[in-house]
Amino acid sequence: MSWLLTAADLPDLARGATLLGTGGGGDPYIGSKLVERVLGDGAITILDPEELADDLFVIPTAQMGAPTVMIEKIPAGTEPTLALRALEAHLGRTADATMPIECGGINSMIPLVVAAETGLPVVDADGMGRAFPELSMETFAVYGVHGSPLALAGERGETVIIDTGDDDRQMEWLARAITIRLGGVGHIAEYAMTGADVRRTAVPRTISMALALGRAIREAREQHRSPFEAIADTLSRTLYSHLRELTVGKVVDVERRTTEGFAKGRAVIAPLEGEGTFEILFQNENLIARRDGEVVAIVPDLICVVDHETAEPITTEGLRYGQRVRVLGISTPDMMRTEGALAAFGPSAFGLAEPFLPVERLGS
Amino acid sequence: MSWLLTAADLPDLARGATLLGTGGGGDPYIGSKLVERVLGDGAITILDPEELADDLFVIPTAQMGAPTVMIEKIPAGTEPTLALRALEAHLGRTADATMPIECGGINSMIPLVVAAETGLPVVDADGMGRAFPELSMETFAVYGVHGSPLALAGERGETVIIDTGDDDRQMEWLARAITIRLGGVGHIAEYAMTGADVRRTAVPRTISMALALGRAIREAREQHRSPFEAIADTLSRTLYSHLRELTVGKVVDVERRTTEGFAKGRAVIAPLEGEGTFEILFQNENLIARRDGEVVAIVPDLICVVDHETAEPITTEGLRYGQRVRVLGISTPDMMRTEGALAAFGPSAFGLAEPFLPVERLGS
Repeated sequence: MSWLLTAADLPDLARGATLLGTGGGGDPYIGSKLVERVLGDGAITILDPEELADDLFVIPTAQMGAPTVMIEKIPAGTEPTLALRALEAHLGRTADATMPIECGGINSMIPLVVAAETGLPVVDADGMGRAFPELSMETFAVYGVHGSPLALAGERGETVIIDTGDDDRQMEWLARAITIRLGGVGHIAEYAMTGADVRRTAVPRTISMALALGRAIREAREQHRSPFEAIADTLSRTLYSHLRELTVGKVVDVERRTTEGFAKGRAVIAPLEGEGTFEILFQNENLIARRDGEVVAIVPDLICVVDHETAEPITTEGLRYGQRVRVLGISTPDMMRTEGALAAFGPSAFGLAEPFLPVERLGS
Repeated sequence: MSWLLTAADLPDLARGATLLGTGGGGDPYIGSKLVERVLGDGAITILDPEELADDLFVIPTAQMGAPTVMIEKIPAGTEPTLALRALEAHLGRTADATMPIECGGINSMIPLVVAAETGLPVVDADGMGRAFPELSMETFAVYGVHGSPLALAGERGETVIIDTGDDDRQMEWLARAITIRLGGVGHIAEYAMTGADVRRTAVPRTISMALALGRAIREAREQHRSPFEAIADTLSRTLYSHLRELTVGKVVDVERRTTEGFAKGRAVIAPLEGEGTFEILFQNENLIARRDGEVVAIVPDLICVVDHETAEPITTEGLRYGQRVRVLGISTPDMMRTEGALAAFGPSAFGLAEPFLPVERLGS
């Protein structure tokens, strides 16, 4: 069923989107402020993917760039709509709706900025089912909808159209070059598709899931219930049904370096009880978690670091020595675990030698 | 008057275009081989700019990239036409003709490749009146025709449309980023304009001038006349009417480094007769020549290094210790020496502190 999203929902949505960002994805708080400013006391129509007309024309919108730059360089807010309009002009077709390409991090918010500005509805689905660092890491692409042509807009009104045919990695490669020259952040419209394509290629109901997660955490805190139980309970009604607490501990080491536009590094967590070590490797997002050297969760499954009491999600940027955290492993939907999906955004896509194994089947 | 160009003209045109490349511009010989392959025994119509209908629609075509890469990575030949077609599609308008953006170096040839492939005529004019290293260094831009939207095509069929409004430097900045990611060479269509625009903003008859120069040098050699007198005589009938021999000497030092995609450096020439030193600084193209520290020619005037006997032009890449050379200073047309023109491609545009002074008024 379609529903209305208002400014009152934004803090919960931001919290849930940070959780689904699995350490990366850019700061949804900044994005929520952009939505708030444009939306005022209006409302955005969120469309259920099952209810879309087959020929409804959807143009997803997003931001691309280094999360660190996004924090320092707050966008004007008009660029994603400019990208959408540029793609419409190029295609000679007007969008009936927009949609996220990524439900974790700031890209949960960018389509809402577009919706608030244009009056377009937003489809409750996305192409990553979490956050990933590259434009080609999309279920859309895995299931046959390609990113090209992509439109990119800069803060000085520049527009760039990139068409690499079916080659989504080359699209990413070229768009990244433009984004770097624009100062590190660009806004994009890409993966234009029909309503039928959405149902075939998108991870469904990820906006409502992010909102439900953020809300569940907040309400549990307000009612002095366990926010962790609230998260588990919320997920049990979604395609992300398995949650496992991987460790509770204290951050004792964080290594972080920016390489080729990515924040790469590792966090070491010492369990609060018992012996042993726990380690997470990340590239913008958390990629793999090991307990005493043994893999306990691996991409594309979600590895989420949260405050050990409040369950507030902590990004890789926010990791600090001495923080007490819980690490949650969350299963992804089946469509994100197929052979094609794993080729696009499984362990090998990040240079990891370990094979993918579902978090629910790994050692507890 | 319009005229027909055939494959038999290409060696002379290449020689003249190398001279007008003033040390840079990429190798027109490679370009001439591309034209030859497509043209066969056909002919290309070259249109005189004075005879263009006011509303004739002209889309110039070119190659961009590092001259060194162009030597190593010969283009397929279909990319410039792909760029032209992409720009036509974007603009919703079909080109009536193509045109060079640069008459020196390989870009004298790229529009001929397009013409041979498509049957389009080529306008006998360009926007640099020589070679320059950046897409924004165009008389077109100086006199009000901007480069955007620009279409860029890669060898794998990628197309990119860049629109930066009136900001031709930003267009260059973004297009250069794409070119680098495509491996160092891209093919472009840009500065779309009407016949009336051509007459107002282009340097006229530079293809026929390059051809006449190359032919004059060859015929003088064949007839055992002085090729230098032939060059002077040919130029006297063009807008480039002043030629001065700046020195005759031996190359005694060449420094060359590749910085930010440019071949920057300096050549020192010891005069064959008398004392003193002669120095040329270059950035792809020769920028300034000094005799005993005194400026004797400066950009945008042409500083051409040629073999001291045959007058064969020598590029900065081709400079070698011990070569005996003549250095020629050639005046550029008035439209390339206005305040606006000098701001775009005068000494300060290359970071030189010296003001522009016409070669015909500098110390002999």
